[in-house]
Amino acid sequence: MKLYEQFAEEIAELIRTGALKPGEKIPSVRTASRTHEISPATVFQAYYLLERRGLIEARARSGYIVRANAKGVLAEPQFADLAHPHQETNATDVDVSELVFSVLNSIKDPTTIPLGSAFPSPDLFPLQRLARSMTKSLREMPAHAVVADMTAGNANLRRQITLRAMAIGNKFPADELVITNGALEALNLCLQTVTNPGDLVAIESPAFYAKLQVLERLKLKAVEIPVHPRDGIDLDILADSLARLPIKACWVMSSFQNPLGASMSDEKKQKLCELIAQYQLPTIEDDVYAELYFGIHQPKPLKSFDQQHLVMYCSSFSKSLAPGYRVGWVAGGKFAEQINRLQLMTTISPSVPAQAAIADYLQHGGFDRHLRKLREALESQQQKMLVAIERYFPQGTRVTQPKGGYFLWVELPPQVDSLQLFKLALAQGISIAPGPIFSASQRFRNCIRINYGNVWNAKIEEAVSVLGKLIASFL
Amino acid sequence: MKLYEQFAEEIAELIRTGALKPGEKIPSVRTASRTHEISPATVFQAYYLLERRGLIEARARSGYIVRANAKGVLAEPQFADLAHPHQETNATDVDVSELVFSVLNSIKDPTTIPLGSAFPSPDLFPLQRLARSMTKSLREMPAHAVVADMTAGNANLRRQITLRAMAIGNKFPADELVITNGALEALNLCLQTVTNPGDLVAIESPAFYAKLQVLERLKLKAVEIPVHPRDGIDLDILADSLARLPIKACWVMSSFQNPLGASMSDEKKQKLCELIAQYQLPTIEDDVYAELYFGIHQPKPLKSFDQQHLVMYCSSFSKSLAPGYRVGWVAGGKFAEQINRLQLMTTISPSVPAQAAIADYLQHGGFDRHLRKLREALESQQQKMLVAIERYFPQGTRVTQPKGGYFLWVELPPQVDSLQLFKLALAQGISIAPGPIFSASQRFRNCIRINYGNVWNAKIEEAVSVLGKLIASFL
Repeated sequence: MKLYEQFAEEIAELIRTGALKPGEKIPSVRTASRTHEISPATVFQAYYLLERRGLIEARARSGYIVRANAKGVLAEPQFADLAHPHQETNATDVDVSELVFSVLNSIKDPTTIPLGSAFPSPDLFPLQRLARSMTKSLREMPAHAVVADMTAGNANLRRQITLRAMAIGNKFPADELVITNGALEALNLCLQTVTNPGDLVAIESPAFYAKLQVLERLKLKAVEIPVHPRDGIDLDILADSLARLPIKACWVMSSFQNPLGASMSDEKKQKLCELIAQYQLPTIEDDVYAELYFGIHQPKPLKSFDQQHLVMYCSSFSKSLAPGYRVGWVAGGKFAEQINRLQLMTTISPSVPAQAAIADYLQHGGFDRHLRKLREALESQQQKMLVAIERYFPQGTRVTQPKGGYFLWVELPPQVDSLQLFKLALAQGISIAPGPIFSASQRFRNCIRINYGNVWNAKIEEAVSVLGKLIASFL
Repeated sequence: MKLYEQFAEEIAELIRTGALKPGEKIPSVRTASRTHEISPATVFQAYYLLERRGLIEARARSGYIVRANAKGVLAEPQFADLAHPHQETNATDVDVSELVFSVLNSIKDPTTIPLGSAFPSPDLFPLQRLARSMTKSLREMPAHAVVADMTAGNANLRRQITLRAMAIGNKFPADELVITNGALEALNLCLQTVTNPGDLVAIESPAFYAKLQVLERLKLKAVEIPVHPRDGIDLDILADSLARLPIKACWVMSSFQNPLGASMSDEKKQKLCELIAQYQLPTIEDDVYAELYFGIHQPKPLKSFDQQHLVMYCSSFSKSLAPGYRVGWVAGGKFAEQINRLQLMTTISPSVPAQAAIADYLQHGGFDRHLRKLREALESQQQKMLVAIERYFPQGTRVTQPKGGYFLWVELPPQVDSLQLFKLALAQGISIAPGPIFSASQRFRNCIRINYGNVWNAKIEEAVSVLGKLIASFL
């Protein structure tokens, strides 16, 4: 990270934590240059970056101030509402697939404004550079590798993944690693490895709908543990559930949880690991958004606190580099061999050329540079989306302000039915992800998930404005 | 097909059917030219081709004769032995994975002579031409396709597959098609779609071991229907089993069955379809070797006789073009939508670049030309393997002579324990596939499957000779 980026991050962190509040002036260039012992040019560069990201704005004769909308104008969604229904029920049969498919089917039209999409815009990814890596690695690949790399996985890719994980303190032996067809296959394999039909699984509420579908497919029962919009899963309720119920596995996202964007603190991860160890609970960690952090450091995964090899750590390149290549991975802890065998019986391996291309890109393509740009773009898009929501959505709207990823979770006034809203919006060419698809018990009726992973433009702003009017029509 | 190829095929067919017997002279160039009204040069070209394929050989002053080993010197494996154990048992819990994995693990060493491999040599595939298709299609691919093509599949690939299927009379509506991570994922999805744990499934005996593993994974019971080494599954026994048992699905290979190489006649396929219709039995057809036929025409699939949309037709490009790309497909009949949904919940889709590369190759790369060369190579390698087996294996050895694919099924004298033989051979750097991994009830103890998909060389011949000695040591 360059000096001006580092300085910009320091200021950004002050804004994120509220030390610098909306409307407040940030240090003048001269002051900052003197107190931080960096050149005025470097300070300027940092401030331009923060301005691009939408965190500060220039005021005539006042220098820069923190933007009014930068953080904290809209309240965050409530936690109590999420926790409440849990007390009534212990474990829920999952039957959400029909609803999810009807939502996914209806947003296939490429002209729809994809605020309901699960993916960021492909324009944010270095697809042509990656294509060059593909060409190069196919030219250099010995013929036998196209067969041999199936079962073993591309050796260079395995090495690159292990090295990158190690750099953030996520150490695991290389033979724990299984390369998969995206993170979704990894999650499926893990859950299938440690459960049998009828078993209880602790999952987040709200949770990524594909997880609910996996539970449904495997005939597992969901024990829904509420997630705090900022801090992640509620450990007290999880501990209580573990004490009372024969829960066979746990499934969490420790950073930038989908859909809430919540992230656990390191202390909380440590505590969760102690709980896992106490119950010897196989735990699946889905960390696909970890590299999309807006802070200074990539958050440490839960797995890096796990001494017992109980955490199966799943990630992929679909959200950070190569959507559509379908390459993910899992460091499977003590379950790695079973996971690998299950894959050999179902898909054998992900595409060998796709593995080779990604390996070459990781080694030579400038992944870290790309990630910095991507994070900058996403943080700036988040700001713009927050401003638009604040402007167009009615009073009483609450919204998350996650420190990474590309989703906002919006809690609308209680009169709003998000499934109805979904249909009305779709008729106007706008997709959203309605709250009930994120819950085994179809809660969150007045919530929606909004994707800000698209390059901001007038059409998106117009879509948010239309959404606002539709929402108002419920009140 | 060129004129000389067509003429060569006619002669080859006479040899295959036994109309021309080993040692017999084939028509002189002059006679053939006159009676078939083709130029002597064309006849010469045809005979060179047949010689390259190992079907005929030149004799001083006698012209060409049918090679002694061309067909029929070694007896074919017995059918009765396969049928017999079936009468004792109706449905078998499958527990073969440990054995299969111990075999697969032990043959990973790339220096092993891979007679036990499931794949032909990568040297037989146009990998560099395919790489050019990859480069071109990634350059031309619009950014949004990398996300959009995931759920829908590559449109051009879908079109090419449908057109090629139609050309052999395998017509189905385009929306029946689901692109998968190789045929193995297709087979898994199909079986999971039409069964529940504990259900009975009719499968071939012997059957491809990966199928047995899928049954085991899904906790299904196998009703093993014996396969005739030449004509495929025994319909009488199947009919009897269907009448007696609540069989929920059937799983067959109609052409070049793995491991026997058996192929059903069209009449038999017709009859099987009637049986399927009578019981409204969901049927999975695995046809991955269909394009590797040695005859004049590609055999028609079972699906082309199915009026009731009960047949789920699975195929892939792994055996004919692009091993390691992990692209297969299924035309799912009336189950297509369920199959597609199941995939969306597990792997989403195969790699988008791999799909695009194969689509471009199918359209522009000369797939039919490649297939002609591949078939020629495989038929010639089969002949060489048969000659070697005849020379080096002991009396009493029986072997199939399939009309396509790249496997021989060898029935050894009853004293031979193929699991022991497997270990002894591996110690000498040679892999084989032992019979018991092809059976839910671990039969076929004195059988092995031999892969002739590798370019013939002295090392392979030496390996067959070593195998022969090891086999003799059991007698």
